[in-house]
Amino acid sequence: MQEDLKIGIAGLGTVGCGLVKLLEEHGDLIAERCGRRLTVTAVCARARSRKRPVDVSGYRWHDQASDLARDPQIDVFVELIGGSDGVARESVLAAIDAGKHVVTANKALLAHHGSELAHQAEEKGVALNYEAAVAGGIPIIKCLREALAGNRITHIYGILNGTCNYILSEMRESGRDFAAVLNEAQELGYAEADPSFDVDGIDTAHKLAILAAIAFGSEVNFKSVHIEGIREISSVDISYAEELGFRIKLLGIASREDGVIEQRVHPCMVKATAPIAAVEGVFNGVVAEGDYVGTLMLEGRGAGAAPTASAVVADIIDLARKIELPTFMVPAPSLDRPRVLKIDDHFGRQYIRLSVLDKPGVIADIAAALRDEQISVEAMLQRGRAPGEAVTVVIITHETTGFAITRALNKIGSLESVLERPRRIRIEEF
Amino acid sequence: MQEDLKIGIAGLGTVGCGLVKLLEEHGDLIAERCGRRLTVTAVCARARSRKRPVDVSGYRWHDQASDLARDPQIDVFVELIGGSDGVARESVLAAIDAGKHVVTANKALLAHHGSELAHQAEEKGVALNYEAAVAGGIPIIKCLREALAGNRITHIYGILNGTCNYILSEMRESGRDFAAVLNEAQELGYAEADPSFDVDGIDTAHKLAILAAIAFGSEVNFKSVHIEGIREISSVDISYAEELGFRIKLLGIASREDGVIEQRVHPCMVKATAPIAAVEGVFNGVVAEGDYVGTLMLEGRGAGAAPTASAVVADIIDLARKIELPTFMVPAPSLDRPRVLKIDDHFGRQYIRLSVLDKPGVIADIAAALRDEQISVEAMLQRGRAPGEAVTVVIITHETTGFAITRALNKIGSLESVLERPRRIRIEEF
Repeated sequence: MQEDLKIGIAGLGTVGCGLVKLLEEHGDLIAERCGRRLTVTAVCARARSRKRPVDVSGYRWHDQASDLARDPQIDVFVELIGGSDGVARESVLAAIDAGKHVVTANKALLAHHGSELAHQAEEKGVALNYEAAVAGGIPIIKCLREALAGNRITHIYGILNGTCNYILSEMRESGRDFAAVLNEAQELGYAEADPSFDVDGIDTAHKLAILAAIAFGSEVNFKSVHIEGIREISSVDISYAEELGFRIKLLGIASREDGVIEQRVHPCMVKATAPIAAVEGVFNGVVAEGDYVGTLMLEGRGAGAAPTASAVVADIIDLARKIELPTFMVPAPSLDRPRVLKIDDHFGRQYIRLSVLDKPGVIADIAAALRDEQISVEAMLQRGRAPGEAVTVVIITHETTGFAITRALNKIGSLESVLERPRRIRIEEF
Repeated sequence: MQEDLKIGIAGLGTVGCGLVKLLEEHGDLIAERCGRRLTVTAVCARARSRKRPVDVSGYRWHDQASDLARDPQIDVFVELIGGSDGVARESVLAAIDAGKHVVTANKALLAHHGSELAHQAEEKGVALNYEAAVAGGIPIIKCLREALAGNRITHIYGILNGTCNYILSEMRESGRDFAAVLNEAQELGYAEADPSFDVDGIDTAHKLAILAAIAFGSEVNFKSVHIEGIREISSVDISYAEELGFRIKLLGIASREDGVIEQRVHPCMVKATAPIAAVEGVFNGVVAEGDYVGTLMLEGRGAGAAPTASAVVADIIDLARKIELPTFMVPAPSLDRPRVLKIDDHFGRQYIRLSVLDKPGVIADIAAALRDEQISVEAMLQRGRAPGEAVTVVIITHETTGFAITRALNKIGSLESVLERPRRIRIEEF
């Protein structure tokens, strides 16, 4: 058997403790599978004395993550601190500088500094692995960097945030509104006290930017991701979606065509029969489309101590087996900076929901605004009648540009008989 | 850039030609991604002059696969001949003996001789890769050997044969019978002229035996797989399944508990809302359950030139990147030979369909036969009434052993008022 692989773990929260537990429980199994033992040599966290689900008193302790990163007794620095900057970034850079491999679950760090870190790691000849940063236990990074390496990837998209997917699934099943379900999700521990990072789509955008970089061989470009969250989705939208044969999902979608990329995060209507529509509750689902493999979907747990630890340990096992690849599949200097499409360049069908006064001429005004932008209507639904009062009108357009819809909705929103800001949800054809 | 990786391809049928096309089309892309070129040095097939979708006249030619296997100008021998024995096995053994890495898409070869080949390859220090042998473009082998290597796998199951899944999906959607849909599948090229290998479940069993070996660290044990195909599924079963909230799928299912494994291939009723139920048409779906990762499902194209070529080239890329693992994840001498459960040891709910004479006392006799085996009934359906004529009775049992059902059905089948051999479909709770 080869020499042990010596690991330092920075951060002993949910995932860090899950990792310690996994390594203790499956030490022999893993040693048999990779021909060497994975040994935790030292750990580090903010508070040494905090109560934890695993006993870490037997491990050598550092107070500072950067000291652990430089510890000559470790081969691999595992960063589970979190945050795009500060201690996480400093300690990862320190580890790379000291010639250590890095394993991280930190999507914010990679979304903001992925290209820089890739350059640094490759210059130093160390690996930077981050399977757990995207979609938890789902091995989408390994699939893209290895299993699909013979393909030109045209699209990568998915449900990358379990909190949002849980909320949307619950809204659909129970008919309740966003606020009520969010509340329940917080009580169940599926949503944070401050949920904005999840429900406003930022977490999904971090992950999407990372996936796009690998899939398309481009530098991580988080800033160009168009981001909309799910706060404005109402139970009315969900019930109309169901009536029309759709489900509403928060998707991250990236594509590359003719050297131009698109990166967007927003609620989408997808056909109820599409495989991605069947990904429900806290589960994540990721779809890659390659020119040879066709459509490949992976579905699994996107968060939680155990699935995330499974992904982190897979990254460490790769290093034990000497599997070391460029961070984003091609060497960092080869990553390009393609032009990024604006969200309103997007061409597709859209769902529009309006609250209007039920009186003669309103529909004619709306139809005229759509006609003026060359938007043709596939379906228009009005539920019930309430002369002189507010009714909901739902429109499904044929394919058109986002620009046309934006201009039409501006005009429609300014009509006197239109009572609320018009809502839109893009329809995706998978 | 490192030296080229030199490849010899044996077999220039659909997959072989797909591989040649992929390597020609994406040569530069792959070279950038793995830091070296993959070069086809020589090829071999039965008939040199046969018309093919790619031009292979520029490649050095061997008439005998074993000569190609020993060609000093190749590093990797790619076996795309097929068949569990004969030329495929001989040439793979020759390649291993000559110290070449082997990549194969041949499930029959691995199901019958996997353990032997693993021993040989590891003794010679070469890799034996076979991603394309199971579920085509879906990277389930890589996921098990690498991404899930930190997990104890408890279950692995899936839809592993696109022909059967296409037939069952079409039967459900169109209401037609097995024979009519099989006919259509043959015309569309989704089923072979002799479809028995697919529809009788043998192909699924080959793949399941391979998956079980990796997942459970046991020797490949194809002979112990219980195999039933889909010929006996009627459109009546499919319509009852739908009424009861189920779908019928041909699944391969393997599990390991307390050192005992179960390996079975048969039609299953699965909840219509289960993710695996959403895998339709020619698609394959594989689910792995690990103690840390939880449930992970992969869905994609299980056959066809391009998806299979994608998997074969991924295996070759692994070798170009020097990723070389033991065939079944642990070294071959560590593979164990666990006890295998008999199919009738299986415990679960079952669906039973009977054709009976509609006359007083029949149901009482059936109920008595079930009671005598301690089988309790969850639901019993009889559609319509036709006194003195044949009616269909469907029973869903509570959980029970296969033995009890087998004995009860023997007794029920011998009742005078029971007109056909009783049919059963096991219900799986996913």
